[in-house]
Amino acid sequence: MHVLVIGAAGMVGRKLLDRIASEPGALGGEIDRLTLVDVIEPVAPAALAGISITKAADLSDAGVAEALIASRPDMIFHLAAIVSGEAEADFEKGYKVNLDGTRELFEAIRLEGKKAPYRPRVVFASSIAVFGTPFPDKIGDEFFTTPLTSYGTQKAISELLLSDYSRRGFFDGIGIRLPTICIRPGKPNKAASGFFSNILREPLVGHEAVLPVDENVRHWFASPRSAVGFFVHAATLDLDKVGSRRNLSMPGLSALVGEEIAALKRVAGDKAVKLIRREPDATIQKIVAGWATDFDTKRATELGFRAETAFDEIIKAHIEDELGGNI
Amino acid sequence: MHVLVIGAAGMVGRKLLDRIASEPGALGGEIDRLTLVDVIEPVAPAALAGISITKAADLSDAGVAEALIASRPDMIFHLAAIVSGEAEADFEKGYKVNLDGTRELFEAIRLEGKKAPYRPRVVFASSIAVFGTPFPDKIGDEFFTTPLTSYGTQKAISELLLSDYSRRGFFDGIGIRLPTICIRPGKPNKAASGFFSNILREPLVGHEAVLPVDENVRHWFASPRSAVGFFVHAATLDLDKVGSRRNLSMPGLSALVGEEIAALKRVAGDKAVKLIRREPDATIQKIVAGWATDFDTKRATELGFRAETAFDEIIKAHIEDELGGNI
Repeated sequence: MHVLVIGAAGMVGRKLLDRIASEPGALGGEIDRLTLVDVIEPVAPAALAGISITKAADLSDAGVAEALIASRPDMIFHLAAIVSGEAEADFEKGYKVNLDGTRELFEAIRLEGKKAPYRPRVVFASSIAVFGTPFPDKIGDEFFTTPLTSYGTQKAISELLLSDYSRRGFFDGIGIRLPTICIRPGKPNKAASGFFSNILREPLVGHEAVLPVDENVRHWFASPRSAVGFFVHAATLDLDKVGSRRNLSMPGLSALVGEEIAALKRVAGDKAVKLIRREPDATIQKIVAGWATDFDTKRATELGFRAETAFDEIIKAHIEDELGGNI
Repeated sequence: MHVLVIGAAGMVGRKLLDRIASEPGALGGEIDRLTLVDVIEPVAPAALAGISITKAADLSDAGVAEALIASRPDMIFHLAAIVSGEAEADFEKGYKVNLDGTRELFEAIRLEGKKAPYRPRVVFASSIAVFGTPFPDKIGDEFFTTPLTSYGTQKAISELLLSDYSRRGFFDGIGIRLPTICIRPGKPNKAASGFFSNILREPLVGHEAVLPVDENVRHWFASPRSAVGFFVHAATLDLDKVGSRRNLSMPGLSALVGEEIAALKRVAGDKAVKLIRREPDATIQKIVAGWATDFDTKRATELGFRAETAFDEIIKAHIEDELGGNI
């Protein structure tokens, strides 16, 4: 099996590769070729270096998608995107990368299939940003997508294209709407959602972290480990069971910031909790107030997708996966 | 006010122009310039000929949108599309006309606004084809769009673009999801939905019509007169009241084929009903089974959009508007 990962240098891409390296049969067959692409050249895990080709390329540049698809990969993970803040700040770049790049990929697959039968699986990373306020208490599987960002609009449009190209038989697509990934590894960043991870990740290693919102803010979470699990499950799932509605909100954990902190206390004690510094930030509070807080993900759950059910699990997964099991 | 109508040679476009001709203030101000565009050159109603420019042009061809927008129309009706059957038969043409053409228009407006402030109103003709089975008994305002045709996909994507461009302040957009228009004037055509109109329009003038489905088939209707009313209302509506969710399912009449026939009998007698010839057609029955049958259009109704509430009204509107009031 030839697997193509677009966006392979991103956090989820790298963790997906680590999972494949440690569990070679995870995608349901033997992988004999791996093509890894990102705007900066991705690094293949050592165990996969022998079968990997790495490339620095932007999917939205002319000819890139066509060249990638000419080698007819059997399975394609499309994880590449510019993030919400950048897509909002640079309208043209957002549409070019997040919409046109995706469409170029889908078109390249369709046109390759005109040369000789070709119907790869396409697993697409979407986002709960396809939803916009006001929300019901729990967003159900049939709630409409009325994004309030250009990023969310680009993801919602990509979802529609994915469904139509799948329905027409050009590929077998599935769209995975990720919850907010927590605990994001790495350094604190300027994303408005960063604090959800920062207030756990930093205190676990003895560093201070800033909390800009109240403890009663609710949000929707899954660990990086669960995110990888979603993509692996999507790669092998029987899509006949999914039917024509190919975009699924993934399961997650709806939790208050206060519940994050209580779990941190249980796992790492008061010493860790004391490293959280409260610095209310009205701008971040306003942005966060527009985000979805809870979902009823009946379809994805019935299809076998799984996420954490308590914040203690999310923190323990981070300690195992990022901190070698020790704090 | 300079008004641009794209798709001005189509049925709804022509009827919109007739309405403006007979009611010059319908769009909320004096119209001093009217630009009428379609792939075949539209004809301006006599009363509007002095202020009209007519053009044959395809919005999806390079430079067409830019040239149209260079004259900075204040109000734009975008009614142009290829129909569902053609978009399904010719994948590339459907995306080019129905998606790229719309995006070219929206981009031309955005780029014109970079030269000097410009924020026209854009009234877009969408369709209930954005919905795909299975449906609830009544499709509510918050039901998700999972189209099962490429045409429906192109309309759903255009709706998302319209909302995002409106949110960003590039124009003031509103999307109007039309019910099936009945009674369509003109000759019987090969559209799968044609019979809904044929079985009324033809018997009213003494001609036979074919009914390919059972009388217990339910569907969602509005008259051409109501369709024009939707666009006129959308042109003048206070969009602050609409908020960020700019695409609205229009009110309509949910009725059985049997109710159409009963109304025909009340209006035109048994003689007309006897001209309906039953010729079951499994292909058409299957297509029609995938169509929405009823809606709860609370938002549009609260915003003042109105349609017929009985088939007798729909038939009488046709007799008044198309048959000079006589049968």
